[in-house]
Amino acid sequence: MSEFQKKAAYNVAIAGATGAVGETFLNILEERNFPIAELKLLASKRSAGKELTFKGKTYKVEELTHDCFEGVDIALFSAGGGRSLEFAPSAVKAGAVVIDNSSAFRMDPKVPLVVPEVNPEDAFKHNGIIANPNCTTIVMLVALKPLYDYSKIKNVIVSSYQSTSGAGAQAMEELENQARQWVNGEDIVVDKFAHQILFNVIPHVDSFTENGYTKEEMKMFNETQKMLHDKDIKVSATCVRVPTLSAHSEAVTVETVEPISVEKARELFAAAPGLEVIDDPANAKYPMPLFVAGGDTCYVGRIRKDIARENTLTFWVVGDQLRKGAATNAVQIAELFVQ
Amino acid sequence: MSEFQKKAAYNVAIAGATGAVGETFLNILEERNFPIAELKLLASKRSAGKELTFKGKTYKVEELTHDCFEGVDIALFSAGGGRSLEFAPSAVKAGAVVIDNSSAFRMDPKVPLVVPEVNPEDAFKHNGIIANPNCTTIVMLVALKPLYDYSKIKNVIVSSYQSTSGAGAQAMEELENQARQWVNGEDIVVDKFAHQILFNVIPHVDSFTENGYTKEEMKMFNETQKMLHDKDIKVSATCVRVPTLSAHSEAVTVETVEPISVEKARELFAAAPGLEVIDDPANAKYPMPLFVAGGDTCYVGRIRKDIARENTLTFWVVGDQLRKGAATNAVQIAELFVQ
Repeated sequence: MSEFQKKAAYNVAIAGATGAVGETFLNILEERNFPIAELKLLASKRSAGKELTFKGKTYKVEELTHDCFEGVDIALFSAGGGRSLEFAPSAVKAGAVVIDNSSAFRMDPKVPLVVPEVNPEDAFKHNGIIANPNCTTIVMLVALKPLYDYSKIKNVIVSSYQSTSGAGAQAMEELENQARQWVNGEDIVVDKFAHQILFNVIPHVDSFTENGYTKEEMKMFNETQKMLHDKDIKVSATCVRVPTLSAHSEAVTVETVEPISVEKARELFAAAPGLEVIDDPANAKYPMPLFVAGGDTCYVGRIRKDIARENTLTFWVVGDQLRKGAATNAVQIAELFVQ
Repeated sequence: MSEFQKKAAYNVAIAGATGAVGETFLNILEERNFPIAELKLLASKRSAGKELTFKGKTYKVEELTHDCFEGVDIALFSAGGGRSLEFAPSAVKAGAVVIDNSSAFRMDPKVPLVVPEVNPEDAFKHNGIIANPNCTTIVMLVALKPLYDYSKIKNVIVSSYQSTSGAGAQAMEELENQARQWVNGEDIVVDKFAHQILFNVIPHVDSFTENGYTKEEMKMFNETQKMLHDKDIKVSATCVRVPTLSAHSEAVTVETVEPISVEKARELFAAAPGLEVIDDPANAKYPMPLFVAGGDTCYVGRIRKDIARENTLTFWVVGDQLRKGAATNAVQIAELFVQ
């Protein structure tokens, strides 16, 4: 695709079209008026036959198979890591460029990992597959990048407040159902999370690794290093699921090599692409997931000089993890090529 | 009271008896079988006349006045900082020792600030008033103390996940009401918090100060220094309200002077009073507010060596802020004298 001939419109396939991110892909492609010639919606056999609407036209979901990618220019994958590993190579073989939202290829040295606001140049070094980073990492990186360009970053301590829809559409429905069950005095049904999420917080996102961090937390460490091409930046994350529907929030503490004043940080944030400052605490204005959900911008606030350590800034960043944290970022990667 | 004659039982007054902490005072005094001769329940004029039950006996709430403390040995205050400033001196003048749950006297150098697991000896240096620390600080300090005794602590980065009941009984009801309103398709009513708390998180607890931190966040900085008698320990907090009912959770990162291994930390935590380790992530076992609420113990889990910095540990601590974070801690302070 780096040598792609520019076309008026492209044949686009979405693998995992019926999932939370898949449906968001459709919204984003429509909103951004992505130049689509033919659209192919793909999902597992179970979901094949379902109908989805795009720009007022109804599309029947087809089964994701090895042979379904003929003629496809761009394949957006969000069908889980297993399906990406199995089917992405077939898409590449058929001539498509895959933009994969799973974690399957992210740390593969042959696969670029890209946030267009952070490292767009990496996208052009692909070998057929470009990986979309972890959602929590994307939201943080959009805010870290302008600071990093001003001064290298030594380390980041981050605590997340992650929405239920980060675990899929059904996980979000589980929170809504638990609210109904609680109000109606029924038993609370727990299925998608390890524990009840209504009126609770769960310090457990993705599975645990040997060092006591979860895979989600290690993604923030590893993917940040890969995208910034800097093995010296160290990220320690505590990822926590909270009972919100959409948008992830993060309390971020950043130690920089050079000092950055609050005023300078605000200036850097304000000038950064994809980022907006909401930081007027006297009027109770700061980013919150309830009000940020549905947008493509990440919002930063509570910007302050850290009172515990030198050369350290503390702030709060919120972004819609289904959109900028997943679908929007993937479509923005595709746009790097087609614009 | 430091020179108090030991008695078989004490006359106890509760100022603010009808609030969230006030009612918890009654539960704790009953559960712990505190030696009470006479019990006096006090509240504002508005709440006077209400009836509350203690050990099966009904008590009528009296109005909190300057003259109501005659004969009282111990006055437990949780009626807001303004009422503490106004009425605590009257209680002291009448011969009572005040244990005050508000922030009014906490940083007064003549007033000891005490967590019995942390600095019980300070309680005996009182001049009539002993201050109960901020709830979020208490929960954190119970976990920090055993580490601090092993190695001095340089700094702490903490992000909180604070329950609605930390803002009072009505604030907790607001979350419950918002759940009902949402399920019934009604307008969501916002009153006690600056924004809707259902399906949201709000990075704003208490009012903001000039350095961009909230008063709540600065309490964690100042009160920690005061209780550990150490001006070198620096705490940077981000305090966030989350849609839970009871118990505060905190993601804590601690840089120590001497290294502490995870094994040693676990051993220190396990041996510490008032603290229990729940740290079996492979079996999805870690502390969570939904399951910890209602107890007096603080629970620590997710203990790991920080991957971003040297000599740093990261963990997760949860405690019921109405009980250990307020009422239980105050009653434990009283018990230091009567036992």
